[in-house]
Amino acid sequence: MFFLDEELPLGVQDSEEIKKVAVVGTGNIAWHLVRALSHSGIEITYVISRSMNRAEALAEYVSAIPLDDPGKVVDQPDLYLLCVSDDALPMVQATYAGKGSLVVHTSGSNGIDVLDQAGNETGVLYPLQTFSKGVEMTYDHIPFLVEGSDKYTTFRLKHLAERISQQVECIDSQQRRTIHVAAVFACNFNNHLSVIADKLLREAGLDFDLLRPLVEQTLSKLMTITPLEAQTGPALRNDQATIEKHLDALGNNPEEQELYRLLSNNILRYRKKKYE
Amino acid sequence: MFFLDEELPLGVQDSEEIKKVAVVGTGNIAWHLVRALSHSGIEITYVISRSMNRAEALAEYVSAIPLDDPGKVVDQPDLYLLCVSDDALPMVQATYAGKGSLVVHTSGSNGIDVLDQAGNETGVLYPLQTFSKGVEMTYDHIPFLVEGSDKYTTFRLKHLAERISQQVECIDSQQRRTIHVAAVFACNFNNHLSVIADKLLREAGLDFDLLRPLVEQTLSKLMTITPLEAQTGPALRNDQATIEKHLDALGNNPEEQELYRLLSNNILRYRKKKYE
Repeated sequence: MFFLDEELPLGVQDSEEIKKVAVVGTGNIAWHLVRALSHSGIEITYVISRSMNRAEALAEYVSAIPLDDPGKVVDQPDLYLLCVSDDALPMVQATYAGKGSLVVHTSGSNGIDVLDQAGNETGVLYPLQTFSKGVEMTYDHIPFLVEGSDKYTTFRLKHLAERISQQVECIDSQQRRTIHVAAVFACNFNNHLSVIADKLLREAGLDFDLLRPLVEQTLSKLMTITPLEAQTGPALRNDQATIEKHLDALGNNPEEQELYRLLSNNILRYRKKKYE
Repeated sequence: MFFLDEELPLGVQDSEEIKKVAVVGTGNIAWHLVRALSHSGIEITYVISRSMNRAEALAEYVSAIPLDDPGKVVDQPDLYLLCVSDDALPMVQATYAGKGSLVVHTSGSNGIDVLDQAGNETGVLYPLQTFSKGVEMTYDHIPFLVEGSDKYTTFRLKHLAERISQQVECIDSQQRRTIHVAAVFACNFNNHLSVIADKLLREAGLDFDLLRPLVEQTLSKLMTITPLEAQTGPALRNDQATIEKHLDALGNNPEEQELYRLLSNNILRYRKKKYE
């Protein structure tokens, strides 16, 4: 993590400020960033999508101009904010070549170098959160990870993100990739374990509701202590009798049995390191 | 899940009520159940432990008599509540044989049959929660899973648990074992994934604090929708490009790489089932 505060002026000149943003894409991230930017006083001038219907639906909220072709942009924005899928990103960025605006993507897993044809000044503005379209939320405590192709661009993006959130960090592409992998473990995989729990309970005629208080408590512990301190369970205690009972209970679910074994071994490995 | 409400009288006779409880053990569960029972107006008459010091420390809170030997019990309790480790349970239960009181264990992973030598009337009172000694909490929304060796005992235990919590379920040993396995997935393994995330971030000079808002949002989604509905991420989208990038990023952590692969495959398997 590197901080620019000492290297650059504390304030931002009026001429450097990003004021007009064209949002490209209409998915979950676009839905939320349009709201977050607009609430912060940034003008969304265009919403651009292959689908005019989707562009119109999102543009309406902020009185932006909907477009189905970036070639139709008349009033040059300060920033093109690419909120498209990772698959579409390499192709989409190329269409913004030579337009003279800052081009920024919002992907956690892509480096800044994916914008290699988008122009000289490029960047990344990555909100580290799981978004669902249509669910309003507040943005001021979401970590925004920013990166610019040069210090000046990083500075401008940091300033922009600080209008939305109190937690803005300058993070390079390699660090962002690590954060993205860590997020998959702590969020996507974490949720999938509840999917497995839900399935096991259903098979026994039981309801996931039974586990909600426990899941809630597990989370709330994580808000105050480190994950390692919060760890409990048979694997941490190296309670082989219970582990064997559980593996036996998973006899009809060989994939989950294998996951149980691997996760238990992994917990034991961390335990050993901790006590070494 | 079976409910006894229709088979038994709604109220409980004064003579059937469990009023005096002797708690055996001084660990996390004992620490909390002593408080939960005492707050509900149940009299804890004895706290029994191999260690007189530990028995004294816990007994003091509820003005119970500390003992290091069950043979010294004078005033027969209605219930011996065994709050000992799974390892110790088979041996400990045998020492309560022929004492004429109800003998109940509090273990999620043990069947009621582990109490085979403890007497005719036995049962299980399992609070489905993760407890830390010394951290006060409220008990009225913790699911209490009860099982008795006969309907009458189940009824008495259900009545006792309902003094502590609003969520009491009659659950047999096999169902309880499934719930315990599911809880390991949704809580212990779930927490371990945050341990892994924490480790990956540290290795890159980053802090787990970055992920806390995301972890919080991930679990708060689970409080209102099903785990399957809440699932997101590269594996669910079958985004092989991102999965490959992540596996590459985990090159120095082969065990975590293997876990990543297995969890992603498992998510894909559930996805296929969902769409079939």
